[in-house]
Amino acid sequence: MEVKYNKIAPKDIDYLKTIVDEGDILVGKEISEDFGKDELGTVKGNPDVMLYVKSTEEVAKIMKYANEHHFPVVVRGSGTGLVGACVPLFGGIIINTSKMNHILELDESNLTLTVEPGVLLMEIYDYVEQKGYFYAPDPGEKSATIGGNISTNAGGMRAVKYGVTRDWVRAIEVVLPNGDVEWFGRKVVKDSTGYALKHLIIGSEGTLGIITKAILKLEPKPVESISLLVPFASEQAGLDAVPEIIKAKVAPTAIEFFERNTILFAEEFLGKKFPDTKSNSYILLTFEGKNKDELKFNYQIAADICLNKLGATDVFIVDTDERKEAVWKARGAFLEAIKASTTMMDECDVVVPRSEIANYIKFTYDLAKKYEIRIPSFGHAGDGNLHIYICKDDYDLATFNEKLHQIFDEMYKKAKEVGGLVSGEHGIGYAKKTYMKELLGDSQIKLMQGIKEVFDPNHILNPGKVID
Amino acid sequence: MEVKYNKIAPKDIDYLKTIVDEGDILVGKEISEDFGKDELGTVKGNPDVMLYVKSTEEVAKIMKYANEHHFPVVVRGSGTGLVGACVPLFGGIIINTSKMNHILELDESNLTLTVEPGVLLMEIYDYVEQKGYFYAPDPGEKSATIGGNISTNAGGMRAVKYGVTRDWVRAIEVVLPNGDVEWFGRKVVKDSTGYALKHLIIGSEGTLGIITKAILKLEPKPVESISLLVPFASEQAGLDAVPEIIKAKVAPTAIEFFERNTILFAEEFLGKKFPDTKSNSYILLTFEGKNKDELKFNYQIAADICLNKLGATDVFIVDTDERKEAVWKARGAFLEAIKASTTMMDECDVVVPRSEIANYIKFTYDLAKKYEIRIPSFGHAGDGNLHIYICKDDYDLATFNEKLHQIFDEMYKKAKEVGGLVSGEHGIGYAKKTYMKELLGDSQIKLMQGIKEVFDPNHILNPGKVID
Repeated sequence: MEVKYNKIAPKDIDYLKTIVDEGDILVGKEISEDFGKDELGTVKGNPDVMLYVKSTEEVAKIMKYANEHHFPVVVRGSGTGLVGACVPLFGGIIINTSKMNHILELDESNLTLTVEPGVLLMEIYDYVEQKGYFYAPDPGEKSATIGGNISTNAGGMRAVKYGVTRDWVRAIEVVLPNGDVEWFGRKVVKDSTGYALKHLIIGSEGTLGIITKAILKLEPKPVESISLLVPFASEQAGLDAVPEIIKAKVAPTAIEFFERNTILFAEEFLGKKFPDTKSNSYILLTFEGKNKDELKFNYQIAADICLNKLGATDVFIVDTDERKEAVWKARGAFLEAIKASTTMMDECDVVVPRSEIANYIKFTYDLAKKYEIRIPSFGHAGDGNLHIYICKDDYDLATFNEKLHQIFDEMYKKAKEVGGLVSGEHGIGYAKKTYMKELLGDSQIKLMQGIKEVFDPNHILNPGKVID
Repeated sequence: MEVKYNKIAPKDIDYLKTIVDEGDILVGKEISEDFGKDELGTVKGNPDVMLYVKSTEEVAKIMKYANEHHFPVVVRGSGTGLVGACVPLFGGIIINTSKMNHILELDESNLTLTVEPGVLLMEIYDYVEQKGYFYAPDPGEKSATIGGNISTNAGGMRAVKYGVTRDWVRAIEVVLPNGDVEWFGRKVVKDSTGYALKHLIIGSEGTLGIITKAILKLEPKPVESISLLVPFASEQAGLDAVPEIIKAKVAPTAIEFFERNTILFAEEFLGKKFPDTKSNSYILLTFEGKNKDELKFNYQIAADICLNKLGATDVFIVDTDERKEAVWKARGAFLEAIKASTTMMDECDVVVPRSEIANYIKFTYDLAKKYEIRIPSFGHAGDGNLHIYICKDDYDLATFNEKLHQIFDEMYKKAKEVGGLVSGEHGIGYAKKTYMKELLGDSQIKLMQGIKEVFDPNHILNPGKVID
């Protein structure tokens, strides 16, 4: 979509200054380069002005003005995205929500937590755990904002049992591109009241409206948790075990798969030993429940199947604090460890049916051989969401980019073939637009573009993203 | 929206006959009056032609033709709706999905069940339970089709713990108004791939597209279940207990509230005795879990709180087959029993925050006094979704309708005040359109109308419903 935007002039800055507090507006070169990109790093933009907002009213005023004057607007939380979704491609205004960071209400009768969008995920965990509650979504990046999590429909490790961010959002307050403020959803458990506008905003990556409050669902805290670390002699054996564990009906909270090399990188990165590195692949199974008996019942069945049916070489029960720390620290460091192992990398976040996991990973091994490039991966095997890293290592940039392009093409084509999707949890943003178009086809893209047009006829909100 | 539709001519019938099998098309007077209405009964239409479809291709051909010729089309499953959503207000075509009633695949590696839209809810339960699985949504009407359930985002009794139909749909195949066939969602656990078109179709009551296949999520079957029947001396005491039980963090699967009178109606209707009718109100708490210890742990805490803190007069453990049968048969018969107790009634399906349940029910008692009319209710107290029946009894129709109108106005206004919504699980259809508009406001209705326009620019699909 070709849209002409107006350039922000000094008089516009003067007006914007009247909206936010002194010191909460930065103009031109005052804005650090960091705000022109996200964690992907390769997609960049030059914002003209950045405003730290503190209230819904401020956001509404900015949007009304931007809409009337055709200025592009991008919303930004912590900037931890991996697909360039919060990059101001067309310059214009950044609305920075990081100062809208208050937890507004814990409602124990309705089991909800009302927050502002700039609250960090780790702050939510800390708060609700202290009060005896549980917010289940568990994306890897704990310093992301909840606004960002909702905007990408972030997933995480507990999705097998507890679902994703979408499933834990009761309601959102949204500022529409024209400045209207609306609540989508309510503090209610059921809703059959018209089209699901709440669900449309969730995962729309800041292209349809700006989330200014969220009412999250809580549950009573699970009392007990235990993990099994299960080594396998080969990658294939580990991967083949995943659908069998699902079939065994023991309902693990998470099933994570990783290769030996990834653990070695993590050991080096952390300077800490992992409990076991003798085997070629590992599955980490986590169980959560109200009491130890329930857990024991489930994990014993799982352990028995792994050892006696699936060819695991051992089963380590991760129950001591020391072992828990070693395993989860390593698991948490995988991304950073792989990053540190190479000069540059790009990432694929496909999601496939769980039954296809083993084949898909094997397919990436074949790609690594074919293109003579390193492609480490780890991921949420239990939910079919893989994180696959294509590492530049010693290649020059042009060669790397060429290989990357070809590999991505093959990967997303394969994802389509096996009934998967482009993104399990990182979103589309700017970087994955062409792959989504290819996978979903024209008819669905046109519907999405039509919806964009309904919410944002002037295309001022996060232009150039998702389907724009 | 004023739209002109074309009248179906004999040549159109000739063409439609080529699409479906012989005997699967009924024209004009051949169509029973029953297909002109749903369970609400008061909203009626006159279809010109009804086609029993057996495949996606047939649906696609019909839609393409109807779209080109501007014929209105309504989809119908079992016709068990309560808001007139499947009534052919403008005549035209009924697509009847009741012969698309095959269970297509149980996928044990991905824990999914693929079904055609005409499969009945009770058939799904039977099938998955035999195989050791569990499909959680539990709407009262078991002879509804799954297509209808998805179209209204049906809820049911287990929503507190397991969510609603939306939460159990992995993917849907949809025929768009122009005849395009698209899959929204996949057999995957996570999805951050563009706007949530799947969620937009769910709950859209057949106005945006026609569901021709659904991939449902399954879970391993909960092993054990137990209920507590808890009598209270007054309605107020029973209602006040609900938020306290939620706060106690014992995670019941369901919390149902009912009044003594409703039980007496059910006893009369069924000709069977309920375990206890001495108290003015009852709460029925259900617990489900993997083993008896977990259940016992939770229900003992709940029983203790009810008896010692909340003033329950007793706690009956519903654990014998005989008692289970008596309680659940009665619970299942409440709607029919109230229906049988009066000459005519209409229903309100509001959903409010759980903390507001007690006040809201009390408010309906006040309305009953004010308008001198009987307003029995029962409902999913645990999830804030109430079913409230305004009974005509001996009033003449004009008086009843006047009272009904005023009472509905007050009820939905109150729902708005306390942060509730018009429909928890029955939908908007035709009957609740004005109340939704009033509650959500112009801005949201315009967004919904814009979305309708994107999917169905000719307004041929289920015209006059939801926001049309």
